[in-house]
Amino acid sequence: MALIVQKFGGTSVGDLDRIRNVASRVKAEVESGNEVAVVVSAMAGTTNQLVSWARDIGPMHDAREYDAIVATGEQVTVGLLAIALQNLGIDARSWLGWQIPVHTDEVHGAARIRSIDTDVMRARLATGQVAVVAGFQGLAPDGRISTLGRGGSDTSAVALAAALNADRCDIYTDVDGVYTTDPRIAPRAQKLDQITFEEMLEMASLGAKVLQTRSVAMAMRHNVNLQVRSSFTDAPGTLVVNEDAIVEQEKISGIAYSPDEAKLTIQGLPDRPGIAAAIFGTLADSHINVDMIVQTAASEGQKTDITFSLGRGDLAKALEIIESGRETLGFDGVDAQDDVTKISVVGMAMRSQPGVARTMFETLAERGINIEVISTSEIKISVLIAAEYTELAVRSLHTAFGLDAED
Amino acid sequence: MALIVQKFGGTSVGDLDRIRNVASRVKAEVESGNEVAVVVSAMAGTTNQLVSWARDIGPMHDAREYDAIVATGEQVTVGLLAIALQNLGIDARSWLGWQIPVHTDEVHGAARIRSIDTDVMRARLATGQVAVVAGFQGLAPDGRISTLGRGGSDTSAVALAAALNADRCDIYTDVDGVYTTDPRIAPRAQKLDQITFEEMLEMASLGAKVLQTRSVAMAMRHNVNLQVRSSFTDAPGTLVVNEDAIVEQEKISGIAYSPDEAKLTIQGLPDRPGIAAAIFGTLADSHINVDMIVQTAASEGQKTDITFSLGRGDLAKALEIIESGRETLGFDGVDAQDDVTKISVVGMAMRSQPGVARTMFETLAERGINIEVISTSEIKISVLIAAEYTELAVRSLHTAFGLDAED
Repeated sequence: MALIVQKFGGTSVGDLDRIRNVASRVKAEVESGNEVAVVVSAMAGTTNQLVSWARDIGPMHDAREYDAIVATGEQVTVGLLAIALQNLGIDARSWLGWQIPVHTDEVHGAARIRSIDTDVMRARLATGQVAVVAGFQGLAPDGRISTLGRGGSDTSAVALAAALNADRCDIYTDVDGVYTTDPRIAPRAQKLDQITFEEMLEMASLGAKVLQTRSVAMAMRHNVNLQVRSSFTDAPGTLVVNEDAIVEQEKISGIAYSPDEAKLTIQGLPDRPGIAAAIFGTLADSHINVDMIVQTAASEGQKTDITFSLGRGDLAKALEIIESGRETLGFDGVDAQDDVTKISVVGMAMRSQPGVARTMFETLAERGINIEVISTSEIKISVLIAAEYTELAVRSLHTAFGLDAED
Repeated sequence: MALIVQKFGGTSVGDLDRIRNVASRVKAEVESGNEVAVVVSAMAGTTNQLVSWARDIGPMHDAREYDAIVATGEQVTVGLLAIALQNLGIDARSWLGWQIPVHTDEVHGAARIRSIDTDVMRARLATGQVAVVAGFQGLAPDGRISTLGRGGSDTSAVALAAALNADRCDIYTDVDGVYTTDPRIAPRAQKLDQITFEEMLEMASLGAKVLQTRSVAMAMRHNVNLQVRSSFTDAPGTLVVNEDAIVEQEKISGIAYSPDEAKLTIQGLPDRPGIAAAIFGTLADSHINVDMIVQTAASEGQKTDITFSLGRGDLAKALEIIESGRETLGFDGVDAQDDVTKISVVGMAMRSQPGVARTMFETLAERGINIEVISTSEIKISVLIAAEYTELAVRSLHTAFGLDAED
């Protein structure tokens, strides 16, 4: 007998029929002789409605009230799924974050899980009762409801799997696994049978929408066996595994892209120590995440340019902050561009194959695609290019790295 | 300084604008120097949606899950109202049933309040913070959410007012008070400045929709000063008070009607002891409420008829139960009628004015309205009449008892 944590997202529980479908999948797992805890999100669309109410009611924003409001989405789903399971003859009960409880820190709206009390739930699971758990929510130290931020249900599932020491954590979603790239752009994209935590982490943070970065990092830390699979088909999914579980690492794993990027160049900065720290420190204080940074070399005493990428949504705010420091920083001008995409090649194979960067740059050059910024890590290379070349770049790289499915 | 409990129903918080309007009313009470706890219902329509989901997901019905689902309606409203108040510069926080907690019994879906812990809330109120309380919900002994049944928010408000020993409990609704009768039927209906608990109780249980019977009974028991008023106008409402607070009791207070009635006659019953107990005991076991009962006198050893009224929704079930006992009971036949209305004249004045019944019967007779069943209590007389005469009967009685507004 194994203990399985299953997680179903908003699309998988989007209406009553889909909730009944989820109940059937849970039932199948129970009838295979497993103990099952199911973590669910709010019905698709619900959270957006709740968030917009919480925003529209007034400009001031109490995150504690926001949490009480948006946590209702998952509360509805767990009740409905528990009833659906009972109607299939499966013993089941719903668990809200405060009932388990899932203890979080005090950062309402973007809380982090500190610990999960699993004693009572474990005893129930042992009797064959399915635990239907509201994802995304917990109990803050102030005794009020906290939420983990958007997409937090993946994190809830992984954290619960870690706390229960589950044998597997299956993330059910509307795609049937992790692909070498987005199949909507590259029809020859292939589903990966397995991928390492490190690669999945890069893919997630580089724009692949399959799993939340946070949940992958947590699974890696607690060594949770993660599987991404479809809630609509029975096809096997993608296993996210430890590096040592993968024998063959000859190919790179995938091409990721992140379309919502912007680029900002500060021109004619005096080249003096501490100036980069001044710029990026101020941006960080305003919670603006800066991603790729390049600084053109300057001769002694000369001026320099700094270019960096950031989320498109932060561009206006970043511009404002930098302009307000023009006098202190003493630069000549600022150039902003909001039509850029970040394309990344990801794979453990990169460590052993020094030719990856060259293949990437040559492939793009052959298509006349200009690389604006480059950044690399041990298992990925990212470049910033003009947004209009996104699809061409993704498809060309997918072919160049031998990822295309055969006819 | 006074402590006021305000309660706003679903229509009063039906959308964001209305919630902002409620916030303004709460603010006005705070700025008058009062401590305020506000109890709110779910936004109009929300509870129906949640209830239908909980019913449609499957035929089996776990009341604990039902409670978790439907309690979300109020949870959304309290969060939104707390934010709306903060946006008006008023310190406010939401309180869910399990947070206060409002301890109830274990009857999920129709729980009764056992006690309310008010120590923490009281301390917050004393600092000037408004308590925004989710009506209709509590915490059951099993640690799960309970709900009080439909209309339970009135009861929540009265129970909280009793627990806080509040100076007043204002029930805001979409009418501006208690009327002598339904103004939609009798345009000359007048708003009552005050009404006794006993009269209000009769009015509520006889079909007036203004207050839930349960909440009036609780207010009477705990001597809570209740006021019914409009959430849309500033007009003074109706005070529900103790009998001794009312000096003048010359008039009757109002004409109530309950249209959803049915009448059932069991013909040719053997007149033997215990037969009425057998019939009504069986109906009570099936949770069918029987209201007015008349039995025609029978000579020794002869057969008799029993007629009684009941809710129209229970008629089919009652018929089935009675038919199934035909052999045991030994009656000749059954006659059912589902197009009857109960009309009631209510007022403390009845005690001192013996002519009320005569005026009522004469007024109806003059209009050719046949009385099918009569029942009386200390402060009301009810009759069952054919439904088609409802409006005529209400208007005629309203005039006959001197309740019409002057031109």
